[in-house]
Amino acid sequence: MPSITPLRTFVTRLTALYDRDLPETAVQGEAAGLLRDLVAQDDWLPDAFAQPDPERYSQYLLHCDPLERFSVVSFVWGPGQKTPLHDHRVWGLIGMLRGRESETQFERDADGRFRATETTYLDPGEVATLAPGVNDYHQVANAFADRTSISIHVYGANIGGVSRATYDAQTGVEKSFISGYSSPLVPNLWDRSKNAGAA
Amino acid sequence: MPSITPLRTFVTRLTALYDRDLPETAVQGEAAGLLRDLVAQDDWLPDAFAQPDPERYSQYLLHCDPLERFSVVSFVWGPGQKTPLHDHRVWGLIGMLRGRESETQFERDADGRFRATETTYLDPGEVATLAPGVNDYHQVANAFADRTSISIHVYGANIGGVSRATYDAQTGVEKSFISGYSSPLVPNLWDRSKNAGAA
Ligand SMILES: [Fe+3]
Ligand SMILES: [Fe+3]
Ligand SMILES: [Mg+2]
Repeated sequence: MPSITPLRTFVTRLTALYDRDLPETAVQGEAAGLLRDLVAQDDWLPDAFAQPDPERYSQYLLHCDPLERFSVVSFVWGPGQKTPLHDHRVWGLIGMLRGRESETQFERDADGRFRATETTYLDPGEVATLAPGVNDYHQVANAFADRTSISIHVYGANIGGVSRATYDAQTGVEKSFISGYSSPLVPNLWDRSKNAGAA
Repeated sequence: MPSITPLRTFVTRLTALYDRDLPETAVQGEAAGLLRDLVAQDDWLPDAFAQPDPERYSQYLLHCDPLERFSVVSFVWGPGQKTPLHDHRVWGLIGMLRGRESETQFERDADGRFRATETTYLDPGEVATLAPGVNDYHQVANAFADRTSISIHVYGANIGGVSRATYDAQTGVEKSFISGYSSPLVPNLWDRSKNAGAA
């Protein structure tokens, strides 16, 4: 049975960060360190939030800050699944938990069209960053054609409620969307009776 | 399909309350008003958190503040189910959502034994309060022998992790326990794509 404790610790620490009134970039930097700790071990994600959907990649909410200052999402990629080119409009972090992910970053030209600038591969334990005005356009894919990959994403808002866009890379044509979440349930991080071993 | 919006609104408002640095009793008083609004309509609790267990009453966590300052729990009482006499050690609120609950309050005598002081019945929309040092000892039961009752409890801590006690009313003998929760899942309050009607 995986223990949810590492995820609870991550959420508690990230919440506490906001009491320090740091600038956004410092929050993101500190959050990256916490996320690195979280994905250092792949022994805590409940199976219900690690299930691939044969139709499309899944985005399971793991935790949303009740003031909607940040959210933590498990992206589960079935074999070969990928996102369209899209933006975020808030800061983001990708922590690789299982398998391998490719991330292609894009720049937008003056005519509105997109150019791929680089493709990087994320392996378990690695963390990548995204920020509006710096590198907000990307396309993400499972680097494996024959197995599930899972990454843990953290965003500087409730990403399931942010109005943002996908793009046609060739034409630059924008289509707005709100991503929502793949499940009406999230994990219960707060049952401390289990670790206590009490009745 | 029930909309989770009233529960999200309750959680958001209760979280915001803590930014006002009120004394505990004022927090509880304000929270009672918010809970009254929440239980005024029985149209928001997802079915997964309204299921009785034939063996014993269920305590489904609906939300825990990530700083563990408060928690919101759905108590689902099968026909005739009841708690033992117990305490809480943090403030509590009971908001009746569905069915009918009886609450018997107890006072503890100098010899450690308990005396029942009153039994009240809660009907949908009503809210009762509990506070350490005032009225922290009670026994709660479904007032119906033939149907499910549901009440929404709010506590001034993560109640699933509080070490507290049940008591034998006759002898006063105390048995410590941590209640935990009936499910490893909680509802996802944060999918705003559904109300937006976006893709
Ligand atoms: Fe993305
Ligand atoms: Fe109680
Ligand atoms: Mg009454």
